[in-house]
Amino acid sequence: MAKNLEYVLLLDCYGELLTPKQREAAELYYNEDLSLSEIAESRGITRQAVRDSLRHAESVLRESEEKLGMAQRLRALRACLEEIGNACPGEDPASQTITALVRKGLSLL
Amino acid sequence: MAKNLEYVLLLDCYGELLTPKQREAAELYYNEDLSLSEIAESRGITRQAVRDSLRHAESVLRESEEKLGMAQRLRALRACLEEIGNACPGEDPASQTITALVRKGLSLL
Repeated sequence: MAKNLEYVLLLDCYGELLTPKQREAAELYYNEDLSLSEIAESRGITRQAVRDSLRHAESVLRESEEKLGMAQRLRALRACLEEIGNACPGEDPASQTITALVRKGLSLL
Repeated sequence: MAKNLEYVLLLDCYGELLTPKQREAAELYYNEDLSLSEIAESRGITRQAVRDSLRHAESVLRESEEKLGMAQRLRALRACLEEIGNACPGEDPASQTITALVRKGLSLL
């Protein structure tokens, strides 16, 4: 079970839609970077039970993103803001660049 | 039934969570700015049926926002980007302002 860091963002967006068990497993695995075995040990359950919770959690997160697309939106906004930051020396041609990027950023909202 | 324009943003965020009937009513009412009577007439149903669909839709939208808070996040991002735009003459003190605002914007993501 390879850690897909995409789930960190999905968990941030849709964690509230998970059951408490699913959410705990997903947060420990993705946000705290614990292994399946470490989670199983800390909760006194089997590694397979942790894996099942995680699979269900990931399925809910993916389906939520397919419906709502918020993670994709936030990613685009972040990239835009990062670009604004990179284009910010304050020279005049840069101002045009900045304005164009702001426009782009706003159009994504 | 006063039109609360907050629902335009909620509908944009969570419209996919509505039933087709709820979504159609909400889109006609909030996005197309039709009246209850106009929607009822165009769909060949009673004004009361439209009102019921809308009430259910609004309830789903509000509950989704209470859980996920995406509209609030997007509003904050928008305000931030608008400020960046306002602070953008390109003079040197403005550059510091811009950088600070970009940092703020990113921290909201």
